[in-house]
Amino acid sequence: MAFSRFARTLASLASKQTEPSCSIAQRAFATTTTVNGIPVEVHNESGSKRVVVTKSLPGDRWLQYLVKAGCRVEVCKHPDIILSNAIIKQLLGGKCDGVIGQLTEDWGSELFEALRQAGGKAYSNYAVGYNNVKVDEATKRGIPVGNTPGVLTETTAELAAALTLAAARRVPEADVFMRSGQYKGWLPTLFVGQLLQNKTVGIIGAGRIGAAYARMMVEGHKMNLVYYDPYPNKQLEEYIRLYGELLRHRGEPPVACRRVETVEEVLKEADVVSLHCNLDASTKHLINSQRLAIMKKDAVLVNAARGPCIDEAALVAHLKANPDFRCGLDVFEDEPAMKPGLADCPNAVIVPHIASASLWTRSGMATLAAANVAGVLSGYPVWNKQDILPFVEKPMTAVPAAAPSIVNAKELGLKMASD
Amino acid sequence: MAFSRFARTLASLASKQTEPSCSIAQRAFATTTTVNGIPVEVHNESGSKRVVVTKSLPGDRWLQYLVKAGCRVEVCKHPDIILSNAIIKQLLGGKCDGVIGQLTEDWGSELFEALRQAGGKAYSNYAVGYNNVKVDEATKRGIPVGNTPGVLTETTAELAAALTLAAARRVPEADVFMRSGQYKGWLPTLFVGQLLQNKTVGIIGAGRIGAAYARMMVEGHKMNLVYYDPYPNKQLEEYIRLYGELLRHRGEPPVACRRVETVEEVLKEADVVSLHCNLDASTKHLINSQRLAIMKKDAVLVNAARGPCIDEAALVAHLKANPDFRCGLDVFEDEPAMKPGLADCPNAVIVPHIASASLWTRSGMATLAAANVAGVLSGYPVWNKQDILPFVEKPMTAVPAAAPSIVNAKELGLKMASD
Repeated sequence: MAFSRFARTLASLASKQTEPSCSIAQRAFATTTTVNGIPVEVHNESGSKRVVVTKSLPGDRWLQYLVKAGCRVEVCKHPDIILSNAIIKQLLGGKCDGVIGQLTEDWGSELFEALRQAGGKAYSNYAVGYNNVKVDEATKRGIPVGNTPGVLTETTAELAAALTLAAARRVPEADVFMRSGQYKGWLPTLFVGQLLQNKTVGIIGAGRIGAAYARMMVEGHKMNLVYYDPYPNKQLEEYIRLYGELLRHRGEPPVACRRVETVEEVLKEADVVSLHCNLDASTKHLINSQRLAIMKKDAVLVNAARGPCIDEAALVAHLKANPDFRCGLDVFEDEPAMKPGLADCPNAVIVPHIASASLWTRSGMATLAAANVAGVLSGYPVWNKQDILPFVEKPMTAVPAAAPSIVNAKELGLKMASD
Repeated sequence: MAFSRFARTLASLASKQTEPSCSIAQRAFATTTTVNGIPVEVHNESGSKRVVVTKSLPGDRWLQYLVKAGCRVEVCKHPDIILSNAIIKQLLGGKCDGVIGQLTEDWGSELFEALRQAGGKAYSNYAVGYNNVKVDEATKRGIPVGNTPGVLTETTAELAAALTLAAARRVPEADVFMRSGQYKGWLPTLFVGQLLQNKTVGIIGAGRIGAAYARMMVEGHKMNLVYYDPYPNKQLEEYIRLYGELLRHRGEPPVACRRVETVEEVLKEADVVSLHCNLDASTKHLINSQRLAIMKKDAVLVNAARGPCIDEAALVAHLKANPDFRCGLDVFEDEPAMKPGLADCPNAVIVPHIASASLWTRSGMATLAAANVAGVLSGYPVWNKQDILPFVEKPMTAVPAAAPSIVNAKELGLKMASD
């Protein structure tokens, strides 16, 4: 197969890691310096509070929050993708009021102690999750920990939809074929894929992201839904019932929604299966060789949830044995590495953990992380509503005087914003 | 940019044209021989009527139609992608009762005369369109010409949706990055793309495919629709009005649909623009440099309609000047060639005219083409309903005794099937 030859050729070129271009307005006003030998980009040089941001962030609204709160902002430009604790401690230096850090960093006793000693009063993860943060260690030192909920659902679900369509219609494989000049004329058998309409989509996990994805497939492609979740999603079921009635009323075939008792029932019935579960002991290797074997031979499997939910080595073997089986993967068991052989599978679509990578979401996450740090440093109370969009979308003059999401607010006894 | 380096490397490997694998059950029962030196695959060797099929077709139902009608079927295996008239005449030989041919072939006086002299009584294009057929030349010789309507709409619209999502979320670019081993760890700025939800989709041409695509985007991604078409699509407008009411009733933001008077209004307003127009003098270079200039700088442009509707050289210049602008292309101005520079654009998703390439559609097209030829050779009347799905989906024992779609039935005075 030509594709695996291309993949190997590509792999042989794989030495360089380029930082993708990012058109951020504030870059023009930044200066650069070094902190203990580490290059940093400095914004609002004269700010009295020093905030360290461990990675470049998209958009520019986040910076407005910090500048408005009187912060000097230093964005780390170290070439390492994953920063070690040693580097982060050098970055914090002797005086640091707040930090915006990453899921890829190890925020435990070592770093929170260093932050406390530098006079730090606020930390925010640039993520909704905080598996990388030992919150107790922060609480013990009086440091509020922020996260960025409420802006990832639709963007993540849309990436799962993009992977579904790309896998079903073999888009990356066809793009490489075209780009490499192999197209010589239309053929009836060239890159024949799968139609989604009126087929069955299965989801494992019908929480917010799973339900959003399910609706994209049901409404966008008139697919029937079968789902497994320990808890029924009554709102989703009721919506699909009403939507099916609209279709019937218009003389179109209706769509159905059914919750089943086992993962196996989903795998047997569905033409497309997308994972939207958490990772825990019960979902590690949820998709293994036995379960792959009961799926349809030409099914599409999508994972934009957590890498270890799939036994990736078993998936590689299944892809090789079943050329009509396709998958779309955003996450990997040994991320950033892939299991041997995956990169050679033309029937896999593989992207580097970009489920939340829309400009709206990623700049929204930056805004929330910055508003957490700026809010705490300004002495604001903590926001007490689910809806955090006012921080992301209101004019800067009208945003609430609050820190949008502090996960240890209760433990620290922080004041909550009144309605 | 790393991607263009990869593209060049890929291009340097571009000598070979592989025929994609296609798991067709009947292959096991076929024998091979040569006709005037051209290799052919023979099915139902003892059939009394000889039918020539100029390219391998997907699925196997099509073959059942021809075998049931007593045909010996010879599938051309010549290595040329585009068959010359000379090769096709050699294939027809001295006795040929019917042919299934391709859009890439020139069916005019020369080939129809050769077919008539070989005793031919039926021709079907493997396509819904028949720009490549001089129907008059067939009619003049008493030869019915079939086509394959009614099975392409949803598959084509889904490919346009797949291109939209792939371009908005940079899927092929990210896939090459991942496959080439460049991913070293999660970054906030890695492959940041566009969220579709609540944005505006614009379509040029609201016929069957355009309307199907519009609904995928409106219902799947809650996009507002703005469209240009000389004729209003009242059914689409009414559906979106009712759908918007369902959303409002559920407490969700409704969606809107608006027809505008000019192409320019669509281009100015829309975040995603998809072309679904015919190609004629008024739509050649419909998208040119002036019109690209009025589009949003980070818009997505999709063309799964006809290549020459876009001034492709102007598009290449626009893609190079606007790195945040993206496009998804299934068709090309000089197909199978691309304009210089397109293959180096990381912000283009490019696939080789595969809009109708779902197994359901392509095997449905094969079924309809075979049913046309088998029906005419069996002396059946011509089907007189729009809905041709009975030919594609009913058990073989229950399909109508008719030729599903003969474009010159009236001119030839063929009998129509009664209801």
